[in-house]
Amino acid sequence: MTEITRKIADIVSEAGVEFGVCTLFVRHTSASLVIQEAADPAARHDLEVWLERTAPENDPAYTHTEEGPDDMPSHIRSMITSTSTVIPITDGKLALGTWQGIFLAEHRRNTRPRQVVVHISP
Amino acid sequence: MTEITRKIADIVSEAGVEFGVCTLFVRHTSASLVIQEAADPAARHDLEVWLERTAPENDPAYTHTEEGPDDMPSHIRSMITSTSTVIPITDGKLALGTWQGIFLAEHRRNTRPRQVVVHISP
Amino acid sequence: MTEITRKIADIVSEAGVEFGVCTLFVRHTSASLVIQEAADPAARHDLEVWLERTAPENDPAYTHTEEGPDDMPSHIRSMITSTSTVIPITDGKLALGTWQGIFLAEHRRNTRPRQVVVHISP
Repeated sequence: MTEITRKIADIVSEAGVEFGVCTLFVRHTSASLVIQEAADPAARHDLEVWLERTAPENDPAYTHTEEGPDDMPSHIRSMITSTSTVIPITDGKLALGTWQGIFLAEHRRNTRPRQVVVHISP
Repeated sequence: MTEITRKIADIVSEAGVEFGVCTLFVRHTSASLVIQEAADPAARHDLEVWLERTAPENDPAYTHTEEGPDDMPSHIRSMITSTSTVIPITDGKLALGTWQGIFLAEHRRNTRPRQVVVHISP
Repeated sequence: MTEITRKIADIVSEAGVEFGVCTLFVRHTSASLVIQEAADPAARHDLEVWLERTAPENDPAYTHTEEGPDDMPSHIRSMITSTSTVIPITDGKLALGTWQGIFLAEHRRNTRPRQVVVHISP
């Protein structure tokens, strides 16, 4: 999981919207968005371990196996987290709670550049 | 899972909004939305099998059993996927990635007609 | 899970928006939003039991353990449910289905007051 809070906060700041919503959308089926504990990296580590165990590689039930052992688990992990998320903007800033950070969760082994669409509206 | 990408894309096209967001909302507690791999039907099959195994029928822990063995699993499967999703619109089109399709996931055995509310805003 | 449908419906009613969307956002990493069966409390009970079993306390794999045995499970349970949700407004009311209620899911044992940001836009 890669934190993208600062990048999104900067985009919100530049948009100059006082009250509104910021929509984030991942344009992929093997990566997703997670808003979670940003203070302790151990929390993210445990989230990742849980996702890896819950949707493991090489499950004999998988039939979609042509793209490698890490592909089907990545679709499941994306499905049970978030493809899109909407964060309110108050006083020109993301209304995140004290402990919340925005993370791009990469569910495949070989990371390629990922695209997140950001839309801000009053 | 039934693909509804084309239906939603047509609604967006008719709305004539160049830049905005398209909100989808399922008005049910036993069906949900999933944005996932649209190219290979085997991927959806595997997602369905995983959901069926993760929230199986006839779990002895269930107490909400009056509506049949497929009812409580359908609530769990809905809870861990999405009741609502928001997709940005760019250049008048849904900003979906190359491999992404929008699916209505039916989690009960006897499918009745389902309602999805579509809201488009600039 | 605590039902908050009435509170949100009142806010929507006061806002006086005929057609639009209502965005809900939980400002926490150990509580989340769930739109589910509001008629039978047994359904929520079963959802809670499933979440407790799927992300149990005292999993030996957890490394983020300093905040107590109920902390890491609460992050996982939040991650696989929803931090934000968007509900369309039609004819001045939330477009919820017949059986849908909005619930704040508390995933820690000692509940403190929780904050949900509500944003309404036409």
